[in-house]
Amino acid sequence: MSASLAVELADLVGEANVAVDPGELAAHARDCWPLLAMRERAGETLPRPAAVVWPTSTAQASALYAWASARGVPLVPFGGGGGVVGGAAPVAGGVAVDTKRMARVLELDAESGLVVAQPGVIGQTLEEWLGARGWTLGHFPSSITLSSVGGFAAARSAGQCSTRYGAFASLVAGMEAVLPDGTVVRREAHPASAAGPDLIGLLLGGEGTLGLITELTLRVTPKPESLGFRALRMPSFTAGLDTLRGILRTGLRPAVLRLYDQADTALSHPDLGGCLLVVMAEGWPPLVDLEVRTAAQVGIAHDGEDLGEDLARHWHEHRYDVSWRLADFLKPGGMFGDAVAVDTLEVAARWSRLPDTYTAVRDALAGAADVVLCHASHAYPDGACLYFTFGAAGQGDEVKVRERYQQAWTAAMDAAVAVGATITHHHGIGLLRAPWLAAELGAGGMAMLQRVKDALDPAGIANPGKLGLAVKA
Amino acid sequence: MSASLAVELADLVGEANVAVDPGELAAHARDCWPLLAMRERAGETLPRPAAVVWPTSTAQASALYAWASARGVPLVPFGGGGGVVGGAAPVAGGVAVDTKRMARVLELDAESGLVVAQPGVIGQTLEEWLGARGWTLGHFPSSITLSSVGGFAAARSAGQCSTRYGAFASLVAGMEAVLPDGTVVRREAHPASAAGPDLIGLLLGGEGTLGLITELTLRVTPKPESLGFRALRMPSFTAGLDTLRGILRTGLRPAVLRLYDQADTALSHPDLGGCLLVVMAEGWPPLVDLEVRTAAQVGIAHDGEDLGEDLARHWHEHRYDVSWRLADFLKPGGMFGDAVAVDTLEVAARWSRLPDTYTAVRDALAGAADVVLCHASHAYPDGACLYFTFGAAGQGDEVKVRERYQQAWTAAMDAAVAVGATITHHHGIGLLRAPWLAAELGAGGMAMLQRVKDALDPAGIANPGKLGLAVKA
Repeated sequence: MSASLAVELADLVGEANVAVDPGELAAHARDCWPLLAMRERAGETLPRPAAVVWPTSTAQASALYAWASARGVPLVPFGGGGGVVGGAAPVAGGVAVDTKRMARVLELDAESGLVVAQPGVIGQTLEEWLGARGWTLGHFPSSITLSSVGGFAAARSAGQCSTRYGAFASLVAGMEAVLPDGTVVRREAHPASAAGPDLIGLLLGGEGTLGLITELTLRVTPKPESLGFRALRMPSFTAGLDTLRGILRTGLRPAVLRLYDQADTALSHPDLGGCLLVVMAEGWPPLVDLEVRTAAQVGIAHDGEDLGEDLARHWHEHRYDVSWRLADFLKPGGMFGDAVAVDTLEVAARWSRLPDTYTAVRDALAGAADVVLCHASHAYPDGACLYFTFGAAGQGDEVKVRERYQQAWTAAMDAAVAVGATITHHHGIGLLRAPWLAAELGAGGMAMLQRVKDALDPAGIANPGKLGLAVKA
Repeated sequence: MSASLAVELADLVGEANVAVDPGELAAHARDCWPLLAMRERAGETLPRPAAVVWPTSTAQASALYAWASARGVPLVPFGGGGGVVGGAAPVAGGVAVDTKRMARVLELDAESGLVVAQPGVIGQTLEEWLGARGWTLGHFPSSITLSSVGGFAAARSAGQCSTRYGAFASLVAGMEAVLPDGTVVRREAHPASAAGPDLIGLLLGGEGTLGLITELTLRVTPKPESLGFRALRMPSFTAGLDTLRGILRTGLRPAVLRLYDQADTALSHPDLGGCLLVVMAEGWPPLVDLEVRTAAQVGIAHDGEDLGEDLARHWHEHRYDVSWRLADFLKPGGMFGDAVAVDTLEVAARWSRLPDTYTAVRDALAGAADVVLCHASHAYPDGACLYFTFGAAGQGDEVKVRERYQQAWTAAMDAAVAVGATITHHHGIGLLRAPWLAAELGAGGMAMLQRVKDALDPAGIANPGKLGLAVKA
């Protein structure tokens, strides 16, 4: 079929927007899931799409999906490729739908604080575009320089400042999407509405299995007039968690509240001891002042020591570095040798379950990995995200290191489910977590997901093989 | 069928939880939609359910829905009966499912700020239960003494303090529901999650057409340590809207920001002149102080006059009165005579569309009604709700007054759609707004709603005739 495929696709999106050359196919064979990088490092050839298309308009995307449904051709959305769970891997073949030629910022409604963007706009590009006009989106994932707003929405991203701005889903005020049969749906941006269920909101976290997001209307905030910083040394992780909760109980929402456990603190600051707590506030100066001052007071009341601003400023300057350093470890000839596995794993839980979640997931990882670090990375009034970094070396044995990697993930996900945490705070499900989604949603929830999927994608062409959904024969 | 019906229902929920007497059937024939009250006042008998059931557990509700799907019997959820759009009216007959015997508060997780409640708990009951334990839900609709938390969720309610606490949907951290075929779905409460689409969230705003909500886990907030009040007289409605937006741009979220237009101001305070702006803040004292002080400063910068605290305190003391006064007008022998129509109508729009929305909807109502008042009742960073009160007298002619009432609604909804507002901020769709839902959702959105409905309710038994969905033969 591949000879005629390119011709058919060219009819739909234009010849210049179709590629079948091996380089492009290989570039769309995987996202940033470390296991796929390890498999490539070991010489394996990953499943590739049969073609890559770059639709340039909603109309083209609609025609493409209608065609794919009629022909039974899988379509796999591909944004920036920054996902870390394999969501963009074309496991059933088909066509990669790259959104990078739908990458315009369409409109700024400065009076309402709303920006309209196409899905392929890269996070950093949008942030700079807004910054030049006096605004911020407030969404700062560490992948910001390579990941797209469509991907943020499809995978329910959360940025480093989500305590203040909310996770990405809460920034979405309006949306346009193409359903798997080509139907175009739109929801206008309203500040709040009681006009029926939030149908199009199903595409948030749908990871491309329910269609393609073609436009987003996002809430933006005036660019901060001031930044405030404070670091504290907490005597224990528990005292630190109590501090985070205490700060949020006041009603204040500092942009960043990050608490490192002893191992994670020691890695960056070997001489510090205890658990480092980083506070960053941004926005309107009187509120920033109140947030930073209050955070310090609550920390001190929980036996913390005020360390001043420096370590918090240091975090802010280096806030995107870690992910790049981790990626370096996976390259052949990396600093820990060839056979090494490094990854991050985030879960979230309500405050009352957080200490148990911390212990259970950390111990589960430690049973298979050599190094386990953790920090509470995103805090909310009702709970927080725990972000683990773990690594395992294989003494030169690639098969062995991959086994340890899989064991670590399996043990950690089982532990998260058992303790009542959600299995992912912002990295999503993809291939990696699909085996645990049913445990999180329950039999009823999984049945509901499958019924909604079947109703909206009867041909089964929208990113098949993801979210643990059935793949049509 | 009605003889055997009671027997079958008794098997499902117990004999004590079934009623077929005319009093109960009449009591479940309508909610608080004024048109239904007017029709009763005119001597009309409204469609009644064939029976009323009060399930006492999720298991009973599940069995009931499975039975109804198998037998093709419509089920119409009935909470407190406080809806104002006819959502609980059994237009296709069937069985009313009253939630008032699932009305327990099940658990308070004080560490996480989460409360678990059954759907039939009345808002005021929950608020008092929480208050005795040092918490508030922060959800204060004017129907709070008679409406249920299940109803708040099913109809996407918003309370008077939604600027601070958010609309009800944002208070929902977890949920359990019964789908129309009896499947039980649960979503645990997590502070944030990227584990797939928010499926069960479809029941928010579903108004019973996608199943029955059987349990809610809600975010609660420490009971306010202090309240702060301030009133301002603004020279115009536009200057008032600019003030609301300016306050929210700081990042502060006072609980209440209400701006009355000149007509609405004059009704309560005939000698005041201009537009009354009411500010109420509640919570942690330093934040309350900053909110009230800042609100006054922003208002004064927009040529407002600081009126001190009294008028804001007065609003707070009388904040639930208006709805009761309106209901009085509709009683036979009310103060404006028998043939009178009074109703409220709320829409919401982004800031940039709000002045046009105000003018368009007000003028549309004024074309059919004698009195039109408006206040901006709920403000958010990206826009606000406009809440209209309107009345028409029929000079003793009940048919004529109802015609004018319908004309007012038709003109106002058409105007809201034309100007790009949402047709409802917190009263919902029900029967009243069903003719305009397709205009809001668009053809694609309406098709998506119908497909999801058909997938989850193939027998068409869940509150048929609502949300403009097709009714099965």
